Amino acid sequence: MNLDFRFNADGLLPAIVRGAEDGRVLMLAWMNAEAVRQTLNTGLMHYWSRSRKKLWLKGETSGHTQRVIRWFVDCDRDALLFEVEQTGGACHTGHYSCFFQELDFEGQPLTVSDPMVFDPELVYEK
Amino acid sequence: MNLDFRFNADGLLPAIVRGAEDGRVLMLAWMNAEAVRQTLNTGLMHYWSRSRKKLWLKGETSGHTQRVIRWFVDCDRDALLFEVEQTGGACHTGHYSCFFQELDFEGQPLTVSDPMVFDPELVYEK
Repeated sequence: MNLDFRFNADGLLPAIVRGAEDGRVLMLAWMNAEAVRQTLNTGLMHYWSRSRKKLWLKGETSGHTQRVIRWFVDCDRDALLFEVEQTGGACHTGHYSCFFQELDFEGQPLTVSDPMVFDPELVYEK
Repeated sequence: MNLDFRFNADGLLPAIVRGAEDGRVLMLAWMNAEAVRQTLNTGLMHYWSRSRKKLWLKGETSGHTQRVIRWFVDCDRDALLFEVEQTGGACHTGHYSCFFQELDFEGQPLTVSDPMVFDPELVYEK
């Protein structure tokens, strides 16, 4: 497997994830080489959790997995883009996308129009 | 201006940039607070160049500026998403998007089908 990317000093790369069907940007997360390897081997997005310092299968708790359809590397080989089939929602808040909060040109939050796609209280253990 | 984001230890945030009309992901770049401020004040994307260690107006050499249409912060407030009107192409290689290189599930490059939108030899000084 060719994983000749420009990982940062922590051995990580940012990965942009978008819906393969609707093209919406779902989230940005971080991957180390092992996360990329597991993602390609299983077809399901895996990340490196910087807070928990462990490999993480997206959806392992919620069931909201992300199946890889296509992926791309950028011109500098220091960022990845994955197009996925998202089960449920990508965001732990219950939204489909983590980027549900639009801001105005003063940085103030606009009313959120993006609907909830699941109830996080029912999906995540307390 | 409210820029209450979770900048990293270097004072930077990753920014995902996509075309407002076609929804394609164009690039990932880094912003410090001043880059966000200049972007909002001028309506044109500014970044922090980690290699040159300076603020950078996208398109200052090439003329390929990016006018902000809408922007979003993610649920963790540690990543930004900008929807822009891209003049010319976003990528220094002459492609519209920096993510023109698709990979297979072994990490090998697939044939690039994304057309060139400008000739970098004519746009950038040697």
